[in-house]
Amino acid sequence: MPVNLQAPNPADLFPVPGVKLGIAMAGVRKANRRDLTVITVSEGSQVAGVFTTNRFCAAPVQLCQKHLAANVGTRALVINTGNANAGTGEDGLVRAFSTCVALGRHLELAPEQVLPFSTGVIMEPLPHDRIAAGLPAALDDLKEGNWAVAAEAIMTTDTLPKAASKRITLGGKTVTITGISKGAGMIRPNMATMLGFLATDAALAPGLVQSLVTDAANRSFNRITIDGDTSTNDSFVIVATGQAGNTPITSFDSGDGAVLKAAVIDVAEKLAQAIVRDGEGATKFIAVQVDGGRTEDECRQVAYAIAHSPLVKTAFFASDPNLGRILAAVGYAGITDLDQTKIDLHLDDVSVAVDGGRNPAYREEDGARVMKQAEITVRVNLKRGGASSTVWTCDLSYEYVKINADYRS
Amino acid sequence: MPVNLQAPNPADLFPVPGVKLGIAMAGVRKANRRDLTVITVSEGSQVAGVFTTNRFCAAPVQLCQKHLAANVGTRALVINTGNANAGTGEDGLVRAFSTCVALGRHLELAPEQVLPFSTGVIMEPLPHDRIAAGLPAALDDLKEGNWAVAAEAIMTTDTLPKAASKRITLGGKTVTITGISKGAGMIRPNMATMLGFLATDAALAPGLVQSLVTDAANRSFNRITIDGDTSTNDSFVIVATGQAGNTPITSFDSGDGAVLKAAVIDVAEKLAQAIVRDGEGATKFIAVQVDGGRTEDECRQVAYAIAHSPLVKTAFFASDPNLGRILAAVGYAGITDLDQTKIDLHLDDVSVAVDGGRNPAYREEDGARVMKQAEITVRVNLKRGGASSTVWTCDLSYEYVKINADYRS
Repeated sequence: MPVNLQAPNPADLFPVPGVKLGIAMAGVRKANRRDLTVITVSEGSQVAGVFTTNRFCAAPVQLCQKHLAANVGTRALVINTGNANAGTGEDGLVRAFSTCVALGRHLELAPEQVLPFSTGVIMEPLPHDRIAAGLPAALDDLKEGNWAVAAEAIMTTDTLPKAASKRITLGGKTVTITGISKGAGMIRPNMATMLGFLATDAALAPGLVQSLVTDAANRSFNRITIDGDTSTNDSFVIVATGQAGNTPITSFDSGDGAVLKAAVIDVAEKLAQAIVRDGEGATKFIAVQVDGGRTEDECRQVAYAIAHSPLVKTAFFASDPNLGRILAAVGYAGITDLDQTKIDLHLDDVSVAVDGGRNPAYREEDGARVMKQAEITVRVNLKRGGASSTVWTCDLSYEYVKINADYRS
Repeated sequence: MPVNLQAPNPADLFPVPGVKLGIAMAGVRKANRRDLTVITVSEGSQVAGVFTTNRFCAAPVQLCQKHLAANVGTRALVINTGNANAGTGEDGLVRAFSTCVALGRHLELAPEQVLPFSTGVIMEPLPHDRIAAGLPAALDDLKEGNWAVAAEAIMTTDTLPKAASKRITLGGKTVTITGISKGAGMIRPNMATMLGFLATDAALAPGLVQSLVTDAANRSFNRITIDGDTSTNDSFVIVATGQAGNTPITSFDSGDGAVLKAAVIDVAEKLAQAIVRDGEGATKFIAVQVDGGRTEDECRQVAYAIAHSPLVKTAFFASDPNLGRILAAVGYAGITDLDQTKIDLHLDDVSVAVDGGRNPAYREEDGARVMKQAEITVRVNLKRGGASSTVWTCDLSYEYVKINADYRS
C-alpha cells in the first residue's frame, strides 16, 4: 500500500517538445507485459546522467557512461524491465551493445548515440533478440504524450507508476519539465535511483546539463533509502531539448537559471519521494532530519544510520514509540567524537530526548500519537555545528519480507 | 526457531573454581521472571572487558570502563535484564552506580570493585530500587554450579540460553573455561555482543587478560551480525581466577598460552555463533567467507555488506537462489577500486559466478539444493590478495519483523 501516492493523471504530465516515447511488449521475462520503452530526443539536445557507484554496475550502466563520454550527441534511450543485465560479465556488455546497434539501425544513428537501461533480476542473460524484435512496435508507438504509459512500462515491483511535471516561465517563454521514475526495493541510491528520466525543453549553454543532473540527484534520489541496498543499475538522466525558445541558461546561481534549477529539483524530489512512498511493503513515509552537525556529510551519515536500522523501521511499522532505538542508531552512525550528552530528539513536534536522556516532560502517549501517522518527521539535533541534512525512508513490514522472498517465483 | 541450537545441559557446564553465580527475580520490567544475576569472583582474579563502540553507550557500559580503569580489583558483576539503562543521561549513571554501591555494601567491597550490566529496553529509567531489593535473594543463591541458570536469567528476546564450556590441560593441571552469552536482535557487535561472560581458572601473568579478551572478541563476537544494529550495551568480559594451579601464562604466542587462547576462542566462538543461531526470526545459519582480499579488513567489509543486505537475507529465508543479490552487495561494499570482472562466488561447493559473470556450468537446481539447507556457506573470492575473513549471520524472516514490531507490547 503506497503512502499518500496516486497514479499520475496523464493530463497532468505536460509533453516536452523534442521528446517522444514509445512502448511495446517484448516478452523479456513474461509475456503480455509492457516491458520495452524507447525515448527519442531531438537533434541538439543536451543529455547527461549520474549512475550507481556499485562496483558491480550493470552492463547498460557501463555502456551509458561510455556512450555519454563519446560525446556524439545522444538521440535515443532504450529501457527494458524484467532483466537487469548485471553480474553478466563480458557477455552482458555484448548483449547491451547489440540492443544499441539494433535501435541505431532503425533510427539511422550510431550505436553510441543510444543509451541502454535495464532493470529486473540480476545475473541472468539479457534476451537481446526479443528486445530487438520488439523495437519496431515501440518505434511505431512514439509520441510526445506517452509519459504516463512509459511510467507504467518501466515498473518492476512498483505498485504505482511515478511521474511528475511542472511548467515555469523563463523570459516570457513557457518551459516544461516532466519526469518519470521507478524503484521499490534495492533502494539506497548512490548517485541516482534505479531509473529516473527527466526532460525539459529549456535551452542551456553547452555542458550545463551535467551539473544540473548532479545537483538534482544530490537533492532528491541521493536522499532516499528503502532497504539500504545500492542497486547495480541506478541511473538518472536529464534531457534538455532546448526547444522552449528561452535565452540559453548560462548559470544556475541566479535569475532564470536558479528558477529552472529549483523547478528541476522540485520534480526530481517528487519522483524520488514517490519511490519511497511506494517502497516495498511501506506503510509509512518518514523524513529523517539531522541538524546541528559540523558538516552536511555527517548529518546525512546519521540520518542514513537511522533510516537503515531494521529496529527503527519495524518500530515505525508497529507504531510503537520505542524511540531509544533511534538514539542507538545515532550512536553507531560512525561519528567517533559524538557527545551523547548533547543529543536532542523530536518526533514531529514532540520533544522525546534532551541532552542524550529522556525528556522528563515526554509522555508516551504523545509519542504514540505521532507514531500512528502515515507521515512522520524524525528530528535529531547533534548540537555541534550548523549543518543539516534530510533523508526519506519508509518502515519495514511483513510485506517487505514477503515481496522479497517471493520476487522471482 | 533457533538453527541447530539446543539449550545447554547443566552437567556439560563445568564450574570454574573461584566463580559463583546467584540469580533472583527483581521485577525489573515484569514480575516472576529471573532478571537479576550476581557473579562473584575470588580475590586476585584478573578481569577485563571489551565494550560497544556505540557513542550512545549505556550508563553501565560507561561505569564498567571507569571501574576497570580504576584498577582496584573487580570482585563482582551484577546483571539485569528488562531495562538497558541506555539513553538515560546523567540520571542513568547515578542509578547504575547506586546498584554498585548496594552490592558493594553487601559484599564489603568498594563500588568500583563491582561491574554493572544491563540489557533490555532503551531510554527508560532503571528501577534501581527494585534491583537493590532483589540483591539479598541473588546473594543467597550464589554457587559455582549456577552457569545454566544464569544463562537463562540474562535472556531477553533469546529463545534459548547460550553457554559453552571446555576443559584443557596445562602443565598437568586441569583448566576450565566456561562462558554464557545473550542476544538475538540489535546485533552487529563492534567490540562485543550484547552480553558475554567467560571465566577460566587459568593463571595469567598480570595484565594479560586484556589482550585475551580483545583477541577472543575479534575472533568471535566481532564477526557476527543479525540486523546490523550495534547495541548500546555490548559487553564481553573475561574473568581469570588463577585457581587452576598452572604455571602463570606469560604469552599467548606459543606453548600453554597458545593452547589456552585457542580454547578461549573456541568457547567464545560457540557463544557468538549461538547468538546468530538464535537470531530473531532466524531459520538459517549462514557463514560468509571472503577470500582473496588485500587486507582482512576489506574482506570483513565485503562479508558484512552481504550479511547485512535485507535482499540477500530474504532470499535465504525463501530458499531462493536469487544470487545476483550477493554480487550487488559485493559491489556496494565500499571497495572503490574493486574489479567486478575478477569476482568468483560459491554457495557451499557450487560455483555460481566466475570472473564477475554467471558460471556457464551453473545450474539453478544446484543453487536451489544448497539454499534449502539450514546451514550455508557463501564464499566470495576477490582475487586481489591473500587475506580472508568470515562472518556469521542469519536470514531475515516474517518472524524478525513480528518480534521487533511487538517487542515492547
